[in-house]
Amino acid sequence: MTSVKPMSYPLMEKLVALSRRRGFLFQSSEIYGGINAVYDYGPLGVELKRNVKNRWWRDIVTAREDVVGMDAAILMHPKVWEASGHVENFHDPMVECRKCRRRFRQDHLPEGSTQCPECQGELGAPRQFNLMFKTFLGSTEEGAQEIYLRPETAQGIFVNFDNVVSSNRVKLPFGIAQLGKAFRNEITTGNFIFRTREFEQMEMEYFIRPGENTQWLEYWAQERLNWFRSLGITPEKLRLRAHDEDELAHYSTACYDVEYEFPYGFSELEGIADRGTYDLTQHINLSGKKLHYVDQDNRGQKIIPAVVETSAGVDRTVLTLLADAYWEDEENDRVVMRLHPSVAPFKVAIFPLFNKDGMPEVARKLYEDLRFKFAAFYDTGGSIGKRYRRQDEAGTPFCITIDHQTLEDRTVTLRDRDSLEQIRVSLDQVEQVLEEKVGTRG
Amino acid sequence: MTSVKPMSYPLMEKLVALSRRRGFLFQSSEIYGGINAVYDYGPLGVELKRNVKNRWWRDIVTAREDVVGMDAAILMHPKVWEASGHVENFHDPMVECRKCRRRFRQDHLPEGSTQCPECQGELGAPRQFNLMFKTFLGSTEEGAQEIYLRPETAQGIFVNFDNVVSSNRVKLPFGIAQLGKAFRNEITTGNFIFRTREFEQMEMEYFIRPGENTQWLEYWAQERLNWFRSLGITPEKLRLRAHDEDELAHYSTACYDVEYEFPYGFSELEGIADRGTYDLTQHINLSGKKLHYVDQDNRGQKIIPAVVETSAGVDRTVLTLLADAYWEDEENDRVVMRLHPSVAPFKVAIFPLFNKDGMPEVARKLYEDLRFKFAAFYDTGGSIGKRYRRQDEAGTPFCITIDHQTLEDRTVTLRDRDSLEQIRVSLDQVEQVLEEKVGTRG
Repeated sequence: MTSVKPMSYPLMEKLVALSRRRGFLFQSSEIYGGINAVYDYGPLGVELKRNVKNRWWRDIVTAREDVVGMDAAILMHPKVWEASGHVENFHDPMVECRKCRRRFRQDHLPEGSTQCPECQGELGAPRQFNLMFKTFLGSTEEGAQEIYLRPETAQGIFVNFDNVVSSNRVKLPFGIAQLGKAFRNEITTGNFIFRTREFEQMEMEYFIRPGENTQWLEYWAQERLNWFRSLGITPEKLRLRAHDEDELAHYSTACYDVEYEFPYGFSELEGIADRGTYDLTQHINLSGKKLHYVDQDNRGQKIIPAVVETSAGVDRTVLTLLADAYWEDEENDRVVMRLHPSVAPFKVAIFPLFNKDGMPEVARKLYEDLRFKFAAFYDTGGSIGKRYRRQDEAGTPFCITIDHQTLEDRTVTLRDRDSLEQIRVSLDQVEQVLEEKVGTRG
Repeated sequence: MTSVKPMSYPLMEKLVALSRRRGFLFQSSEIYGGINAVYDYGPLGVELKRNVKNRWWRDIVTAREDVVGMDAAILMHPKVWEASGHVENFHDPMVECRKCRRRFRQDHLPEGSTQCPECQGELGAPRQFNLMFKTFLGSTEEGAQEIYLRPETAQGIFVNFDNVVSSNRVKLPFGIAQLGKAFRNEITTGNFIFRTREFEQMEMEYFIRPGENTQWLEYWAQERLNWFRSLGITPEKLRLRAHDEDELAHYSTACYDVEYEFPYGFSELEGIADRGTYDLTQHINLSGKKLHYVDQDNRGQKIIPAVVETSAGVDRTVLTLLADAYWEDEENDRVVMRLHPSVAPFKVAIFPLFNKDGMPEVARKLYEDLRFKFAAFYDTGGSIGKRYRRQDEAGTPFCITIDHQTLEDRTVTLRDRDSLEQIRVSLDQVEQVLEEKVGTRG
């Protein structure tokens, strides 16, 4: 499991530690020494990730009449990757150190390097390395078919273009969206979950009339930037960057990246690319099938639509949310994850001040009333200060405490995670106040 | 891509055709001749599947204080599968026909078979075939590590046992639940999406005090049976079946299956198994790590919990819902998917009777009002009869038509998919009536 050591930044190290301590993220197979650049989501992490994915699905599929969803399999026919260009082009030139056997991407070493940057050993000649994971479908390796784990979800959409058009009443322009895992046998991994070998994508292919490419590229670039802003990410740390011509992938004539400013610099969260008619044309040529759109608005003319793609990383979005939320509140000696309520794993935590005097009964009742409307957490363990600190690190925006006064006047303490402001709210009004502050589920 | 041909049943063939026609399911990579026993979910199928998975997550994780979620990676360290017994035991004995080269599971052939059931050719000697997909992690195949695609999600939970216990305030008994893809290089595939090589699991490991196994096994068997009933599946076609001793897997001492009566007989949807302390003990032995629970209720005693597992197939559940819903209503010359409102891709469709006279404006307004509360579909295409038929096949429980009378008295026609009953409802009351009939989102 050779890889270049990820660069170290204090914030990243703190995020790794907090993620493990609170149950956001664990190294995969940690009890067996781990597996490089693969991570498991813990109880808090899975809820954060689900919230991101559900927000995307709601905003891209459910809320839009011009986009439908689908879910293609990870295992696909190898011809798909011939057509897409991945078999031919998805390579990294790599050099190996003859002494320590570490491998490096050639384009990441200073030009003309002959010595290993780790041990000063001699570097070998560069070799091409395809980044797709290979496996074998069928019953024995000799007789089995060599296939790949998909390196992107996009091709699952293109090969189903005709299936979707035939089974749904879609009219240009329309999008087909998909969420799912993809795999790349990356040589350079690192920066926690920024670049991992197994990752999840949120991709949408938007089919348009050829010629409308620029207008839709601009539209989707702005839409997607706004989407990241809507997750509560610091606006000044988000930017749109147009690709230079020499950065463009082989299929693309124009591309924007939505980037976030991580401690290690601005890095890509999502690519918005004008793919033209490249993919459909390739699949038509290789499969011999008709993948066109019959334009009823134009005397049944058959056209091959152009495509604007939006391609975001789920794990990168989660990392951005964690990095952007992390706050060392020195004044109050605490660490706070200032997650936006819409993505926070729990919206509210409910505590009885003491586990006696009728407080747990009132607290339980409130918890039972709220939990189906807001993701809620009930905790009786340890001092109230400790319970607050745990929720600060979990990113829970509001805590409610049932105390002696509650038993007298039926009011509770509602504590704001970020401002630490505490207000008293009548039990009858808690639900409404929370609704105003965090919105409702779904 | 050798495989035994799936048995043919009229209902299954009709489901395959309807699924393709309406966009529930497509064969993967169809334009390249397909890939055996792998399927893609279309626009309707992905919503049906999402509804199943979201119902499970809500009922197993969100609604229960004693269960937390997680999401482990598909790629895991190979030692995981040594510990679990998959490297040693996850084999099928297989024989190949020397003439036609078809391969068969030996235990599926009549005992002592020497002739191929397909071409009467001579059968070769049985060979062991491991069902795990193998791939290579790292930069070149020679230097890379051989790893497997997980054949089940369960082990991701066991290897993270200590991570979850350390980061969360869980107390016995508690469960850890996970949704995700798994892969088995099955020799015998077929019956549409009943047995596929790539599939999705909904698994939960419930950790208990040793000795309480039987009581929790019975509890979870009943709970899970009830869950399938709650999806609207015909109760008489669901049953719980206790495994005979000779059916039990190597790790299990007792097991129930929830089964559904498909056209080809009762088949497993979910297994509920007493796994004892097998998995944790195996991982302790192989990793040398401490995977125990410190029992604060019992003077800090360290115990290795026993486990009751619930393991369901997402795709099988989807197939069950499709098979159970399919209805040829001969009297009215239509095909209806009688899906339960909670899983139906769309809850309501809204039509203007004609695309003029102010009807579209009223219909659009109603659609915009309802769509964030109920998954809604808007359709103006074709005769009203055709639009109804399309929604019948999509499984949409209610259709609303805006007609001439609407413009006069602000009432609409609400049509029930199954009974075909049509009632007039005031525009102001549509939302409330739908809420009573289908419940709200989430």
